[in-house]
Amino acid sequence: MTRLPVAVLGATGAVGQTFIRLLEDHPWFQLAEVAASERSAGKRYGDVTRWIEGAMPAAVARMTVTLCDPATVRSPIVFSALDAAAAAELEPAFARAGRFVLSNAKNLRMEADVPLVIPEVNADHLALLDAQRARGWAGGVVTNANCAATVAAMALAPLHTAFGLTELFLSTMQAVSGAGYPGVPSLDILGNVIPYIGDEEPKLEREMQKMLGTLAGAAIVPAPFVVSAHANRVPVEHGHTVAMSARFARKPSVAHALEALREWRGADSVRGLPSAPEHPLLVTDAPDRPQPRRDVMAGKGMTVTVGRVREDALFDLRCVAMGHNTIRGAAGGSILNAELLAATGRLGWVPPGRA
Amino acid sequence: MTRLPVAVLGATGAVGQTFIRLLEDHPWFQLAEVAASERSAGKRYGDVTRWIEGAMPAAVARMTVTLCDPATVRSPIVFSALDAAAAAELEPAFARAGRFVLSNAKNLRMEADVPLVIPEVNADHLALLDAQRARGWAGGVVTNANCAATVAAMALAPLHTAFGLTELFLSTMQAVSGAGYPGVPSLDILGNVIPYIGDEEPKLEREMQKMLGTLAGAAIVPAPFVVSAHANRVPVEHGHTVAMSARFARKPSVAHALEALREWRGADSVRGLPSAPEHPLLVTDAPDRPQPRRDVMAGKGMTVTVGRVREDALFDLRCVAMGHNTIRGAAGGSILNAELLAATGRLGWVPPGRA
Amino acid sequence: MTRLPVAVLGATGAVGQTFIRLLEDHPWFQLAEVAASERSAGKRYGDVTRWIEGAMPAAVARMTVTLCDPATVRSPIVFSALDAAAAAELEPAFARAGRFVLSNAKNLRMEADVPLVIPEVNADHLALLDAQRARGWAGGVVTNANCAATVAAMALAPLHTAFGLTELFLSTMQAVSGAGYPGVPSLDILGNVIPYIGDEEPKLEREMQKMLGTLAGAAIVPAPFVVSAHANRVPVEHGHTVAMSARFARKPSVAHALEALREWRGADSVRGLPSAPEHPLLVTDAPDRPQPRRDVMAGKGMTVTVGRVREDALFDLRCVAMGHNTIRGAAGGSILNAELLAATGRLGWVPPGRA
Amino acid sequence: MTRLPVAVLGATGAVGQTFIRLLEDHPWFQLAEVAASERSAGKRYGDVTRWIEGAMPAAVARMTVTLCDPATVRSPIVFSALDAAAAAELEPAFARAGRFVLSNAKNLRMEADVPLVIPEVNADHLALLDAQRARGWAGGVVTNANCAATVAAMALAPLHTAFGLTELFLSTMQAVSGAGYPGVPSLDILGNVIPYIGDEEPKLEREMQKMLGTLAGAAIVPAPFVVSAHANRVPVEHGHTVAMSARFARKPSVAHALEALREWRGADSVRGLPSAPEHPLLVTDAPDRPQPRRDVMAGKGMTVTVGRVREDALFDLRCVAMGHNTIRGAAGGSILNAELLAATGRLGWVPPGRA
Repeated sequence: MTRLPVAVLGATGAVGQTFIRLLEDHPWFQLAEVAASERSAGKRYGDVTRWIEGAMPAAVARMTVTLCDPATVRSPIVFSALDAAAAAELEPAFARAGRFVLSNAKNLRMEADVPLVIPEVNADHLALLDAQRARGWAGGVVTNANCAATVAAMALAPLHTAFGLTELFLSTMQAVSGAGYPGVPSLDILGNVIPYIGDEEPKLEREMQKMLGTLAGAAIVPAPFVVSAHANRVPVEHGHTVAMSARFARKPSVAHALEALREWRGADSVRGLPSAPEHPLLVTDAPDRPQPRRDVMAGKGMTVTVGRVREDALFDLRCVAMGHNTIRGAAGGSILNAELLAATGRLGWVPPGRA
Repeated sequence: MTRLPVAVLGATGAVGQTFIRLLEDHPWFQLAEVAASERSAGKRYGDVTRWIEGAMPAAVARMTVTLCDPATVRSPIVFSALDAAAAAELEPAFARAGRFVLSNAKNLRMEADVPLVIPEVNADHLALLDAQRARGWAGGVVTNANCAATVAAMALAPLHTAFGLTELFLSTMQAVSGAGYPGVPSLDILGNVIPYIGDEEPKLEREMQKMLGTLAGAAIVPAPFVVSAHANRVPVEHGHTVAMSARFARKPSVAHALEALREWRGADSVRGLPSAPEHPLLVTDAPDRPQPRRDVMAGKGMTVTVGRVREDALFDLRCVAMGHNTIRGAAGGSILNAELLAATGRLGWVPPGRA
Repeated sequence: MTRLPVAVLGATGAVGQTFIRLLEDHPWFQLAEVAASERSAGKRYGDVTRWIEGAMPAAVARMTVTLCDPATVRSPIVFSALDAAAAAELEPAFARAGRFVLSNAKNLRMEADVPLVIPEVNADHLALLDAQRARGWAGGVVTNANCAATVAAMALAPLHTAFGLTELFLSTMQAVSGAGYPGVPSLDILGNVIPYIGDEEPKLEREMQKMLGTLAGAAIVPAPFVVSAHANRVPVEHGHTVAMSARFARKPSVAHALEALREWRGADSVRGLPSAPEHPLLVTDAPDRPQPRRDVMAGKGMTVTVGRVREDALFDLRCVAMGHNTIRGAAGGSILNAELLAATGRLGWVPPGRA
Repeated sequence: MTRLPVAVLGATGAVGQTFIRLLEDHPWFQLAEVAASERSAGKRYGDVTRWIEGAMPAAVARMTVTLCDPATVRSPIVFSALDAAAAAELEPAFARAGRFVLSNAKNLRMEADVPLVIPEVNADHLALLDAQRARGWAGGVVTNANCAATVAAMALAPLHTAFGLTELFLSTMQAVSGAGYPGVPSLDILGNVIPYIGDEEPKLEREMQKMLGTLAGAAIVPAPFVVSAHANRVPVEHGHTVAMSARFARKPSVAHALEALREWRGADSVRGLPSAPEHPLLVTDAPDRPQPRRDVMAGKGMTVTVGRVREDALFDLRCVAMGHNTIRGAAGGSILNAELLAATGRLGWVPPGRA
């Protein structure tokens, strides 16, 4: 039973490192290639990488960095931790060359034929991949949403399904790891709040409608709600916290909202995937949770925790959602997307035990 | 030219210490008495106080702590840093005994005959003091609002006056000093966010309407807007940051809103008071300000900084306000209230140079 | 194959909680009793405990708290997370009643007949237990050292064995979790250093000599080195960092010191114990490690990481050691001590698979 | 009475900004030029500078940045906040061109003819300036020591004078502002300690001997003590804390050491200089001070606070010193050096009121 070889593009950066950590001992995928720019290509990974968290896996340290190019990277699955500038050219090139690209970059997220996927929420959006053939892509691109949008969308998915979200006010408190490495200077954030994250509010105001939208034929009809977002950076390492007030087409009681949140398991096709947590959402009764330091590793970083579900003076409901920005909101989300591709037969490869 | 003797009740705690720091070298008031509970009374202030910030003023360290009782504390002005439990009995007792109490406790804030004052915003509300005679009080009580409500109310005051606030969402990121000392344990807040502060959201949802309300005869008609508040604690020492989305009766353009904010100076009676900052509001153009660590000491902690004034997708305007929670939002606000009492002749005492 | 029932004394506090987390799914020990003071006894554990890290295990939340008394606590092994005041009376009472007490309190550590044990370092010191019979104790007490002393002693053990430590300077940077909960107020430590920890330096200056001492007959001959300690608190959650300069009877080269550190595995009797890490010491080559946030969970918190081994201008060698203060330095260390007791036959009970 | 025009080289960086803040309203010096590299030259200072602390002075924001070259910068006094690479060429060029350079760079500190000055400690070392003529310099260079070395040297100066320092062990806990801006990434230091600062320990081990050395003819005879340094970075904004154990030729009692520290005022020539604090050293009796957040602004950042003076088990005395690394340890120290140059007649210019 062989594992499928996969590559990480942008492997030396912060998100790339998270991919590498999460792919260690993956039951389906084998990290075969670590790719980066010309500056690092041809060198030992351990020599060109400033490893940020814990210890660098010894096997990876010994790997030779491959140039980020479809001619040199041969794996059928590529996880892209590229920044927007590099992704602009490279991700389409890999798709054209027949690879499936799992992308964290913002470039293609809002393209009509590119699925923006959280498997538990909108696994069916993968159908858009068929439309990518028209681009002349032998492979395809599946994108992740912005990390804070992912956390909010997961908490809202069951509520939107049950009650029809119409208006959403949200204010985030986002971890520094969301800005990559070196990212936020310590002089900017120690004991401080920065009430601004470049280009974050627009993403928060448009990506959720697509994710919570409906597949109609070969297109996504966005969910028709309006979002007002306030994005803030706080001195937290991992875990984006989102305070939300929401209005619905059918006003739910707090009890009904809690029931919808507690019963939600997400799409059937996701259950049992290696990276799928038992509970994509965890609802806490504690008056002062979720908290990033205490709840961020729920479901190995793949579970979003929701708390403080209560009435709102202006809209219908208020609540707080918190999730791991570099796991569920980035690398872990991409890996789950790839597992979904494999499990739904889109790779022409049968995962172990799925015959 | 003599200064007026004043006392601080609850002088050994965190807010009490801020009073003491701010009263050092005050041109009108002379710190004559430091009062606390029986446990400390009769002892040297320096021996019973764990001083939190900077160095304890040597003259205060040598003072003997007085018992918190109108029979032992003789100053005509008392600044109360008492917690709600102690304030419940003591503040009325001092008022009955003819003293003017400047209170930070929540107990009396919402009483119909007790002014809830930010001098620049609603100096005229002091007229309520006359109604307190009906309680048999020879003196009176003037209260400060909750620290986060004060920051928000100052930023909103000129906008409300010009455009008529109707709906307000706000999400706070509050400093640990707001919880006093010892207050928030470090294990709860280092690298963390706590999306809950006990009893804070109700205060934020009701106090601003009174402060921004209108004096009609001997009563305040509350401003008729509705507030939805999300209160969060963040690992910041001083400075509450408030993200707000607001709707108005008359929708302002961003330019008009900025103009209203920039031109506002507050009530005439406040200008020139010793603790009044030149600019009660400062509007910043920087895309990523206000920030607590960088802006909290504007106007010696008495200025609220407003930034990121922009359109809102749901309501009319979004912005961020930030101010010093223990200076403008507590001790400094009380001292300014006392200065206003003096300057408006309510103490029967003429401040130096105001003859 | 039954597991041995064990109790945690002081189960509701911070160290008690760490015991509970580490005993979940323990292969030898079954958490049978959670004991606390009269205030909590008889109540549901989940109702009286403010759980600090992650989520409280559901099974423990449902347990009824037992009164901390040998008459009510029946387990043969008791892990004591009691503070010094409570431990003074209770730990001897449990020992008298035939239980084996694994203590984190300072009270008995320096008693001549009480072993102060790090299994890898001085497993043979358990022989002192026989001498405890003379106190009329049917059971016995085994103590852990101060958390920072444990980290330093582990790093020094192989060096002392090989080269004979004579003089030691150390300066610690200790995590806030070492002070328990609520412990250090956030206003004291956010963005700050406190160059003092009450009673810490004396412990650091006397406990290591006993741990690194030699068993001679029924007594420990302390290792004859002199320690000068500087104890500091820093805003770190877990992990004590210790900078050290050491002089030895036989000056080692850096290469020889590294070799001694790298080859050390500790006492044979410890290998294979459930809580024993594969490497009690890990030597890092990185120029800027060990770091608490990055290395504290090495060996599931039971491994001490040593780095920056280099020449010293005054003594022979300098290095930095870092270890988890509430796992290796407290609860995890006690559990390893209990495993050692079991594995060496001192409990009259044969662990599973050790027949 | 005119003020002397001065320039800041490297004016856009972190230390440059501190110079600018400290020179605002300086009674002797007038900030006439802000100089930086070609990238910024010719542009408005406010447009090319990311201001780090508080608000940028409006007058400076409007200044045009001058190219860092003696041909374009005309002020007779230049404060250099250049990094080592830029300083290597530029500082000698300015000196050659007749300017007095007050340097924070490490390049020239250890040159035999370059004074390394803390005015209170070794004002007489300015005599070395005469020897610089031999380099063909019409002006001269006066250097500041490493920021942590400055803090330690000030605390040790009176003790060395009285008792003769022979051996010193020190372990630092240094603020992030010491690394400039952007400097330390937040992901590296939030809740963490980094037990390493590049090239810091060698500076700590050699610069103090020169500062505490004796002027003999035209040369400095270094003080003959040996230093072992451990340099650590901690999540503190400003203020380096140094734990020290010291041995002396004549062992002092704690009482005598305290007396020497308390009585010390430094060189007579320094008293009354505009930036000289009343007390260059402040001795604290509090058991847990000095602390950076609480004591760093003593003497407006120019006073070093010393505490915990106590016996040492290995050497004679232990103590903790703490001072502001970017004020006393950098920009403020340079300005004081320039004031000393002026006051001692080396500029051929008489400061106001010093006729």
